[in-house]
This record gives sequence, C-alpha cells and structure tokens, in this order.
Amino acid sequence: MSVLIRPGERIDDLQRNGYRIIQDPQRFCFGMDAVLLSAFAAAQPGERVLDLGTGTGVIPILMAARYPGTKYDALEIQLDMADMARRSVELNGLQDCITVSCGDLKEASEIYGAGSRDVITVNPPYMNENHGLTNPSDAKAIARHEIMCCLEDVIRESSACLRSGGRFYMIHRPHRLVEIFSLMRKYHLEPKRMRLVFPREDDEAKMVLVEGSRSGGAWLRCEPPLIICDAKGNYTAEVRDIYEN
Amino acid sequence: MSVLIRPGERIDDLQRNGYRIIQDPQRFCFGMDAVLLSAFAAAQPGERVLDLGTGTGVIPILMAARYPGTKYDALEIQLDMADMARRSVELNGLQDCITVSCGDLKEASEIYGAGSRDVITVNPPYMNENHGLTNPSDAKAIARHEIMCCLEDVIRESSACLRSGGRFYMIHRPHRLVEIFSLMRKYHLEPKRMRLVFPREDDEAKMVLVEGSRSGGAWLRCEPPLIICDAKGNYTAEVRDIYEN
Repeated sequence: MSVLIRPGERIDDLQRNGYRIIQDPQRFCFGMDAVLLSAFAAAQPGERVLDLGTGTGVIPILMAARYPGTKYDALEIQLDMADMARRSVELNGLQDCITVSCGDLKEASEIYGAGSRDVITVNPPYMNENHGLTNPSDAKAIARHEIMCCLEDVIRESSACLRSGGRFYMIHRPHRLVEIFSLMRKYHLEPKRMRLVFPREDDEAKMVLVEGSRSGGAWLRCEPPLIICDAKGNYTAEVRDIYEN
Repeated sequence: MSVLIRPGERIDDLQRNGYRIIQDPQRFCFGMDAVLLSAFAAAQPGERVLDLGTGTGVIPILMAARYPGTKYDALEIQLDMADMARRSVELNGLQDCITVSCGDLKEASEIYGAGSRDVITVNPPYMNENHGLTNPSDAKAIARHEIMCCLEDVIRESSACLRSGGRFYMIHRPHRLVEIFSLMRKYHLEPKRMRLVFPREDDEAKMVLVEGSRSGGAWLRCEPPLIICDAKGNYTAEVRDIYEN
C-alpha cells in the first residue's frame, strides 16, 4: 500500500512480521519501554484491547504481531501523532485490526464506553516535575511529562474502560511505584504482576512493568528481574528474544 | 559468662564477632530473612534502635556486630522467647548494648515512648491465612502467622515509635507489597528503598526488604535484585559476603 510520508518522517523496520513504523525524530520515537510493554502484556483472540496515549502506535502494532485475531483501539491526543500512527497502521495493512482515534485519554471511558474493554495498555508520560520545561507544547515534552494528563487520569480512565476482571498493563518509573499501587487500589485495579527492569544486574531498576486486574483479589507476583545488558554491555538473551520473537 | 541453657536448646555460632545465639528447634530458629534484614538495615553510633518481635534476638545481636556503639532495644511477646533472647545477649556480653523486654508490640509506643526511636527493625509474621492452624499457641505459629499482631499493628506502632525522619526496616513477602506500601503511607512511613530477594535469578521474588522514612518525601529507589543462589545452586558472592562480613 502507498502511504504518505511527510517531511522529517522516516520508516523503521519493527523486525517482526515485516511490520514497519513511521516516526519523526524531531517529535518522538518509541523506545525500549514500548517494546517491553508489548511483550509483558497479553491478549486473547476476540478480546478488545485499548492503548491509551498511543503515540506512534507502536504498542498495538507490536501486539498485533504477537496476538493476531484481536481488535485494537488506540487513542492519541496529538492530531499529528494520531495521523502518523494511522498511516503506520495502513502501511502494515492492519486497518481491520487497529483503529486509531484522536482524543483525550481523560475522556476515554466516554469515547469507548465504560466497562467496554478487556485489556488496556499504556506507556504514559513518566515525569511529574514539569517546572523548567522550555516548550510544554513540544511533542516530546507531551509524551514524557504529565502535561496533558497525570498518572491519576491514566489509572482512573483505564479502570473505567475495563470490564470486571479486565487487565491493565503499564510501564512506568519505579520511583513512583508507591503512587502507582496506591492509585491502582483507589480505582479498583488490583496489582497482580510486577516486573522490575534493570539496565544491568547490579544497577537500580529504571523501569517497572505492572499488570492489574479490574476488581481482582489481593495477591502480587513479583516476577524475575528483567536485566537489559550483561556484564559485557550486550543485550541479555531474554531481551534479544523479546526483540526477535 | 556462664548462661543457663534449658532442655531442648542449643547454642549456634553466628560467625560474626564470635557471637553465638541460643535457639530451640522445637520453638523457632532464625532464618535467612533475619540475616538479610540485619544487612539491609543501617544504624549510626548513638542512634536508638528498636527491634519489634525479636524472637531469638538475632537481629539486634547481628546488628550490634555490624554497628557497635548503638543502643538496641528488643521487644518480644512470648516470655520464654524473651528469656532466651536475654540469655543470648548475656552469652555475648552485650547487656550494655541490647535490652530485651517482654511485651506486646501493639503497645510499643506506650512502652518505649512515642517518637522516641531513630530506627525500627522488624521481621514480622508473614502469613495472614490463619485458618486451619492446628495449634495457634505454638511458638512457631506465633512467629509465622498473624496471630498476636497483624501487619497494620506492626506498621502503626513502628511509625508511632519513630521520630520524624527516623527509619523503618522490614522484611516481608512480596505478594503483600501493595498492602505494605498502602499501610506505610497510611501511617506516614514513606517507602524509600526496596530490594526484592530471588532464590535464583529466574525465580519469582520470595522476600522483599523495605526501608521507610517517618514523614519522608515520595521517591522510591528499587535496588538491584538480591539473588540467593547461582545457576549451580551455590550461594552468590553477595550472599556469602552478607553471611561473612
């Protein structure tokens, strides 16, 4: 399929199913966090998955490769980014599988319907120290800082969109884990699985993957540490496997 | 010093400073959790440390080896255990350093005074599924199950005993981490450091070490994974170091 590529954009190979993605390095490129989240999350055929703040659309595209037969919706507040994500979906011929919409995640349960989804994925802005931002309307700033939404918005709307027993998958920064758990409980998304991500085995964790269950019971599994690089600085076998499979 | 040893008791070498401990295998012997907690916790000379539910007294004895010049109090609800811990303190000539009392940790802030301590250590009962206990008065059951106190009692009284900025060190089970964080926040013990303990690097975490700060600010450091055994089943270098230093 022929898809419009705008000035400044490039097409990157996702190295999965032959899928590709349009990105603009001046705006925002997806990172390892999106790849790790798409491998941590799971979806069954027939489930309805919603990705909040989809950005380039990388998470539903990677999940469509892992879990075909599932319907994905993707919501993005920035019109240009939503348009770019929609063109990436077309580039991969995934229009029947992934539907990108432009809208505010703070209104997700109005847009999609309360209790309407089986699975939520979200890779939200991590940073809540917004003072000193030189350009808060910059696309990178919006992706990284809590300018358009805060963590409580993300968790409240995720919960509102999920059916009872539905699953919530998020990647975030571990220094905010207490707040993450506290807000998840507040909105009845019980944390069920957690995985800390360490750059090396002797480093502090830099990311955390969390799964919650809408109205689930209290029991958290803390999965094995996910180590990115070995002592020589090479990707570990598990990370290579996540990128390649 | 000559110390009374009762029938069924034995003396074990703690392999640190020549210190020894009296234990009764029919009642309760300390485990790796106590050793890990004593290495995770820290105390400065002149600080006043309180160990809640001290059992054999192993935590203050091990900490006295690491941090001499610090005053330790130790509270134990079971009279026989408190007596045994006191005899271990005498066995090591630590009477001027460690004071063991028999009492209920639910009354710790009355016994020691609100805001009176710089550091709390606690290795509480982990299990809150108390149904089916054959003998709830059994010393092992009291050490392992929430019979005499629950997690909320532990956290509430720890907070009440600490001065502002004082430090709380606990080891517990990771499946209760959400409840741990929630109760710590409720009682103004902000989680500041966390370390998950994995039997092997590809296992789920079986223990979690947590440090909280009384009235501290929100920022959690998730420290490197603590792995107990390597792929061959031998203790890792770090665990050997904890036992030997």
